[in-house]
Amino acid sequence: MKQNLAAAFAFGFFLAFAGLAAAKDTDSLPSWNDTDNKRAIIQFVQAVSSEDGAGFVAPAERIAVFDNDGTLWSEQPMYVQLAFALDRVKALAPRHPEWQEKQPFKAVLEGDLKEVFSGGEHALLKLIMATHTGNTTEEFAQIVNDWLDSARHPKTGRRYTEMVFQPMLELLAYLRANDFKTYIVSGGGIEFMRPWAEKVYGIPPEQVIGSSVRTKFELRNGEPVLVRLPEINFIDDKAGKPVGINQHIGRRPIAAFGNSDGDLQMLQWASAGDGARLALLVHHTDEKREWAYDRDSSIGRLDTALDEARAKGWMVVDMKKDWKVVYPFELP
Amino acid sequence: MKQNLAAAFAFGFFLAFAGLAAAKDTDSLPSWNDTDNKRAIIQFVQAVSSEDGAGFVAPAERIAVFDNDGTLWSEQPMYVQLAFALDRVKALAPRHPEWQEKQPFKAVLEGDLKEVFSGGEHALLKLIMATHTGNTTEEFAQIVNDWLDSARHPKTGRRYTEMVFQPMLELLAYLRANDFKTYIVSGGGIEFMRPWAEKVYGIPPEQVIGSSVRTKFELRNGEPVLVRLPEINFIDDKAGKPVGINQHIGRRPIAAFGNSDGDLQMLQWASAGDGARLALLVHHTDEKREWAYDRDSSIGRLDTALDEARAKGWMVVDMKKDWKVVYPFELP
Repeated sequence: MKQNLAAAFAFGFFLAFAGLAAAKDTDSLPSWNDTDNKRAIIQFVQAVSSEDGAGFVAPAERIAVFDNDGTLWSEQPMYVQLAFALDRVKALAPRHPEWQEKQPFKAVLEGDLKEVFSGGEHALLKLIMATHTGNTTEEFAQIVNDWLDSARHPKTGRRYTEMVFQPMLELLAYLRANDFKTYIVSGGGIEFMRPWAEKVYGIPPEQVIGSSVRTKFELRNGEPVLVRLPEINFIDDKAGKPVGINQHIGRRPIAAFGNSDGDLQMLQWASAGDGARLALLVHHTDEKREWAYDRDSSIGRLDTALDEARAKGWMVVDMKKDWKVVYPFELP
Repeated sequence: MKQNLAAAFAFGFFLAFAGLAAAKDTDSLPSWNDTDNKRAIIQFVQAVSSEDGAGFVAPAERIAVFDNDGTLWSEQPMYVQLAFALDRVKALAPRHPEWQEKQPFKAVLEGDLKEVFSGGEHALLKLIMATHTGNTTEEFAQIVNDWLDSARHPKTGRRYTEMVFQPMLELLAYLRANDFKTYIVSGGGIEFMRPWAEKVYGIPPEQVIGSSVRTKFELRNGEPVLVRLPEINFIDDKAGKPVGINQHIGRRPIAAFGNSDGDLQMLQWASAGDGARLALLVHHTDEKREWAYDRDSSIGRLDTALDEARAKGWMVVDMKKDWKVVYPFELP
């Protein structure tokens, strides 16, 4: 009887400790509701981090890749980088009198977005090239930082860097606390994200992968500079994402996070490796706190990837149900 | 008197500790002779690592970039990757009967290197494309590892990965012990170096930058693969090195190590930043233990960069005078 009591007591202790361990992990994701998705994330992280478990992955191989637009921050009503490009057209217009009569610049200056978008990808490329090149890499980083300081989101009036997803910030930190190396793998410009990604996401420049223009090394009065040229170097979207991942990292990620069809191949690439894998899509289902869109959206369309997620059992995060808060400024 | 003794005693202790501290650093580079160069390297590392010093650099900014061929391992009598390409031509020849009559393949199969090289860069590019592409990234890594297991250097009979420079291995480890992140930035193929760079140099795949061919994402029976295409993606040499550094790292290195004119722009780029900088050239001066070559060599030519090093006060390591041993297998 005494022994049984002692055993029961010891078992109680065990439960208490197990409870504490779970609580510790639960606390790493306080803005996630206690759903199956949250539990599956924690289970995955614990499995790859438990040295004596079957799912153990060496820290060096714990690579996690995150799309940016729509996965780490809001991408509606337009990609942040496009808002930047439109503002840059206005800022540069005095130096380009010809833009008053030339599309798509004319439409931007007149605020006629419908006309801008009617030009399709070709028009957008023209805007990007005219507003993102011709300067040095250091000048461009300064321009991006200055713009982010002054620009405000048209709907919320917030800085763009405030419109990042609190649950995803917690997830990034939780993964890093478990020795993951976290990367951004975005269709957006690599040099557009690097100036602020470390401050906002804790992701250093060497862990940012994105689209890029070509650059050219030059000596200007004996000082070396890298000049940004109006030529595409790499498009880090769709089938380009695994290519960019291989080019920059040279290892296959064990976890991949996206929100649109542009992330499909990245999730395929990451989830096809051996051992435990986590492939996750953020589904924008919350028209109140953020936006609700998927199959029919021109921005962040989620269609093929949603079908594949369901077929393959990838995690689909329901923003409305899974997240207690969306943005950091909603925190009590 | 008693006080003076105590002071002298305390001062003696101080000296003893200072001596220990110096000895600790000296011991990190045991294969370097005690020359001005060795002292300057240690002084630089101590300056950027001393939190209360004027030269302090935050750990995240302690980026060091190393050329590979001729800087970390021997590049004579030909680049190791070229030896690999020639062996691959022989291995693949049965599948390519047309090579028996087609240059530069015919010359390779007949062992006529003079004829191979007479075709210049164009011929070498043909060899590289025919031997480095058409497979997946994973297949190629396996081919490289298999070759390194079996191939032997024509002069020493050693494995190529044994012909790395012991003093540079110590320097890599010493920098990492002082929170530097060490990168390879090589004209060689990024996927040729990654399979073994971690084992041999302690440099993980994501810190290897090099030349590359284009790759293409594909699904093969539902399995995603990256296929290596016979098209140049990037040449990481000369003015390409700062471009590659910016593309992959997004920060300016504070230390750069090279040995040839191909490293000039990398050293210019690294040394032009603010604060303490280290730019170093390995000068091949040891025809007995390694090779002696510089201005007139077709491999690893060191001419313009040597002049600039002297004009700018960059460190020029004299292999013969500065290094106690060259290769790890010479260690007692």
